[in-house]
Amino acid sequence: MHIYFDNAASTKVDEEVLKLMYELQKTNFGNPSSIHHFGRNAKSLIEKSRRTIANYFSAAPSEIFFTSGGTEAINMAISACVNSLKITKVITSKLEHQAVLQCLESYEKMGLIELNYLNFDEKANLNFDELNEFLSKNPNSLVALMHLNNEISNLLPIKKVSKICKKHKAIFLSDTVQSIGHYQLNLETIEIDFIVGSAHKFHGPKGVGFIYVNNNMNIKPLIIGGAQERNMRAGTENVIGIAGMAKALEIAYEDFEKNAKYISGLKNYFVERIKKEFLDCSFLGESEEKGAFTILNVVFPKTEKSEMLMINLDIDGIAVSEGSACTSGSSVRSHVVEALGLDENKQALRFSFSKFNTMEEIDICIDSLKKYLSA
Amino acid sequence: MHIYFDNAASTKVDEEVLKLMYELQKTNFGNPSSIHHFGRNAKSLIEKSRRTIANYFSAAPSEIFFTSGGTEAINMAISACVNSLKITKVITSKLEHQAVLQCLESYEKMGLIELNYLNFDEKANLNFDELNEFLSKNPNSLVALMHLNNEISNLLPIKKVSKICKKHKAIFLSDTVQSIGHYQLNLETIEIDFIVGSAHKFHGPKGVGFIYVNNNMNIKPLIIGGAQERNMRAGTENVIGIAGMAKALEIAYEDFEKNAKYISGLKNYFVERIKKEFLDCSFLGESEEKGAFTILNVVFPKTEKSEMLMINLDIDGIAVSEGSACTSGSSVRSHVVEALGLDENKQALRFSFSKFNTMEEIDICIDSLKKYLSA
Repeated sequence: MHIYFDNAASTKVDEEVLKLMYELQKTNFGNPSSIHHFGRNAKSLIEKSRRTIANYFSAAPSEIFFTSGGTEAINMAISACVNSLKITKVITSKLEHQAVLQCLESYEKMGLIELNYLNFDEKANLNFDELNEFLSKNPNSLVALMHLNNEISNLLPIKKVSKICKKHKAIFLSDTVQSIGHYQLNLETIEIDFIVGSAHKFHGPKGVGFIYVNNNMNIKPLIIGGAQERNMRAGTENVIGIAGMAKALEIAYEDFEKNAKYISGLKNYFVERIKKEFLDCSFLGESEEKGAFTILNVVFPKTEKSEMLMINLDIDGIAVSEGSACTSGSSVRSHVVEALGLDENKQALRFSFSKFNTMEEIDICIDSLKKYLSA
Repeated sequence: MHIYFDNAASTKVDEEVLKLMYELQKTNFGNPSSIHHFGRNAKSLIEKSRRTIANYFSAAPSEIFFTSGGTEAINMAISACVNSLKITKVITSKLEHQAVLQCLESYEKMGLIELNYLNFDEKANLNFDELNEFLSKNPNSLVALMHLNNEISNLLPIKKVSKICKKHKAIFLSDTVQSIGHYQLNLETIEIDFIVGSAHKFHGPKGVGFIYVNNNMNIKPLIIGGAQERNMRAGTENVIGIAGMAKALEIAYEDFEKNAKYISGLKNYFVERIKKEFLDCSFLGESEEKGAFTILNVVFPKTEKSEMLMINLDIDGIAVSEGSACTSGSSVRSHVVEALGLDENKQALRFSFSKFNTMEEIDICIDSLKKYLSA
């Protein structure tokens, strides 16, 4: 028996996506830059996918560029801000994903940008008065704030932030890797300069993602050496991955409300059971109520038994996480848990859900937790 | 009917690779950075693939890093030379792929490197005395020379170049995108600092490639923000693509001699028929004899009929190329054809072969050519 509660790290690929990719790949193998029949077939698949993806965000197809994933897309956006737009002041938060933080820190180390961090309250709600104040003193800055926090589920009031940014002519980059496919985003009504997506977070394949770049931006590519993606990203396009990503997004948004309701139901049931069974538990950030329906971060008291909780659950066949997968190879505490100042005597575990999870899986997980947490 | 003679641009994915990827993806969907069961499965698939790939080049697994393809790998190598190794002098040739040339030119424009080009004879054979002389005056330079020219099939005497480089302590980067899977390379006997591979050039999937970085190099990543690939390439790994690439390489090198013989047979037959049927044709570079068995570049006299030759062949269902696919979206002459100074009254066409081509396809192609080239 295997239960997968780590959908914020990666998701199971939809069977329909898998089949489509398998079938397409048999005949669609040309290089999209070739102008013959095989090349045109590949090119047309890419452009169809681009239109599909653009449509879901009310963006123009010319604003979508394909990348190898979310991290490359974030690197591309930040490099563009520093190297093309000559941004020198950046404001972000210590709760961002390492892809954003480490990339920004590397430019800070090179002396190219000054990096500032927004403060937040005990539930990780950012202080937007501070943002407003910072931007009024430093217009034309870059604001890098994620839409849906991958560890604690907090949702950014993205329209509000967009308005603050635009008032002060700041560039707004939102790491939307966790929200895309799960939350809708209309870029016609919410002005954002860069958003990024990664297919494997919404039941698509790994190794493919995209970046939305507002048409008003005039930027240079990160990876150079070919005219692909209108000179914005060199290298033969991952044609089949791109088609798979478009299909996955289509499925995600087609069944959007049904899935959101179903997964919310799972999460609420989990919260209810946790609260009933483990009186000394709490929840990190806004993950109990106001946070996204996909992620729950539970804080357990640290005991001899709970310290090994993640490992013990794994032995029972239940996959959960202590933080972002991207840094979890190491046994250090997640930088987000650290930034929130969680008591050393507490232990945070992230449970993240998908449409493939069931109520029964939650019951099994609660039973397993009881085994390790009861006195 | 469709005939595909553009295998240097991209290849058909092996059915066995497709099936493997499809099957693996059903269950292997964890994030390789997660430490639970699902994560370990993904991680172990990557590490197994890394060992497989390293073995074929007599390299250590720790010297192989996965990328999204050849172009990213080349960008990574060149960025490492400039930014980590502080190389300021580079020698290359105007016959390189645009991924190498444009990337180098961008650092030249930034004033970070001085870029030099080797001369070559009328068949595109590079002048290695010049290389020797340059390096004796400029030790610690970067030498960027491709193993197998993607347009004219010339093969670099890679052992000889390696020796010249090592004598002068130069860094040697060889773009091996076209040779990997078709030619063997033993890095234990030939010292190279960076080689790069792209799965879709050897019947693997698009969107995945690798870079070999000699263990002696101490370099920084191009894409940052996660501990993946031992801190050398951030972003969730394209697990299934990597496994597909390893399988494709395995198939390529298993049947290496058989395929080489078969494809050589096709090419030789093609050359023979071209020479017999079209007396005013010639061959670009060394593609008639000494070049690689995979590529033939035929020079036709430019007539009203031959000017549209590629398009006309395409109408007949035969896919060939006028140059590198990566720049062929535009109708300008390939930079390689240009660099070789081909007469304006001549027209070069690239035919590139794979194990999936047949003698019958060549006969059909010759018939089609006759239709357009006969007076």
